[in-house]
Amino acid sequence: MEREHYSKQYDAELNEIRSKLLEMGGKVELMINDALKSLVERDSALADRVIAFDHEINRLEMEIDERCLQVLARRQPAARDLRFLTLALKIVTDLERIGDQCRNIGKRAKELNEEPPLKPYIDLPRMAQWAGVMVKEALDAFVGGDDRLALKVCGDDQFVDDLNEQIQRELLTFMMSDPTTIARAIKVNAIAKCLERIADHATNVAEMVIFMVKGKDIRHTGHPAV
Amino acid sequence: MEREHYSKQYDAELNEIRSKLLEMGGKVELMINDALKSLVERDSALADRVIAFDHEINRLEMEIDERCLQVLARRQPAARDLRFLTLALKIVTDLERIGDQCRNIGKRAKELNEEPPLKPYIDLPRMAQWAGVMVKEALDAFVGGDDRLALKVCGDDQFVDDLNEQIQRELLTFMMSDPTTIARAIKVNAIAKCLERIADHATNVAEMVIFMVKGKDIRHTGHPAV
Repeated sequence: MEREHYSKQYDAELNEIRSKLLEMGGKVELMINDALKSLVERDSALADRVIAFDHEINRLEMEIDERCLQVLARRQPAARDLRFLTLALKIVTDLERIGDQCRNIGKRAKELNEEPPLKPYIDLPRMAQWAGVMVKEALDAFVGGDDRLALKVCGDDQFVDDLNEQIQRELLTFMMSDPTTIARAIKVNAIAKCLERIADHATNVAEMVIFMVKGKDIRHTGHPAV
Repeated sequence: MEREHYSKQYDAELNEIRSKLLEMGGKVELMINDALKSLVERDSALADRVIAFDHEINRLEMEIDERCLQVLARRQPAARDLRFLTLALKIVTDLERIGDQCRNIGKRAKELNEEPPLKPYIDLPRMAQWAGVMVKEALDAFVGGDDRLALKVCGDDQFVDDLNEQIQRELLTFMMSDPTTIARAIKVNAIAKCLERIADHATNVAEMVIFMVKGKDIRHTGHPAV
């Protein structure tokens, strides 16, 4: 009975970490959406809110870190739980850095909102949508131990990279034909780079999930077919 | 006697992780230097070696991860050692991503080496040197538990950011006055961004070291004076 109580308590602690991670992931997803919206709708007040919200993401990082350390210290977990906790520690860092990228997008959006629009944004919102879905699916894969979903995320990274290259080519044409667009084009390009980095973070998380599930490391070895 | 043997063995395992991390750090530093050298000296063969060397950094990441997991599982460390091991897991990810950035610099250097030089590089090598020193000092701070050194690293990040902004302004002037330089200027700018990210990774490591030593989290709260 004592043992069962202990084990239920332990499970509850792990579940708490799982749900805190999902909460953090949901907030980060919202930040990605809002950061892009502040650009597309030229809403600098929203950009300010995105920038301020980064504090909440940082707070969650510290909280989850601390919870993981406490469980590691008190429960001395083995095998599967140990792998889960050490990956949670790494994943939370990726989520926090996605928050940083959203803050950077918000800053650039505010600058761009001060100037005449360069062109209607079409590919950037698509990139942001992909990146947001990748973050969500990478976390779902982690929490559910779903390596197939994680592999899908790794594959999706290519779409984001392709969109990024397309945007870069287009901006280059703009700059070449009209040098007065250069300063703005560089800022738009910086936003595309931020989104690319967000997708990279999601891919990093997905690769670690595959490692956790399969017990072997596919990081740096190329991704096997789904 | 048995206990003493056990503890000596345990210390040896922790020391092994420490020295593997320093080895990885030394190799990453070399990569930063070589990546910049391949650009400044227009040496594409060296750029190829930098790109290929990324595999070695990835291998070291997996090895150190595995060692940390083994010690966590077998020794069930508490307090200080637990914090050391969980930070080692996070730091190794930063080092690996610095390797990725060096590979990216190598790729851009190869492209730039195919075209006429834009201008002599002065600020980029300075940026690389700062970034390399920051990586070295962040790791030294980690291994020595030296929070003062870690604080210095956090402060140095500003110099790298300033150099990056200076480079961006200069490149903007180039592009405005001669649109034929735009494509090359964008690549040079991408290299500056890579170096800025390397310095950010070093800063992330330094912040985690301060957390380890002081037991409180200065990440996201602003850096106190040294």
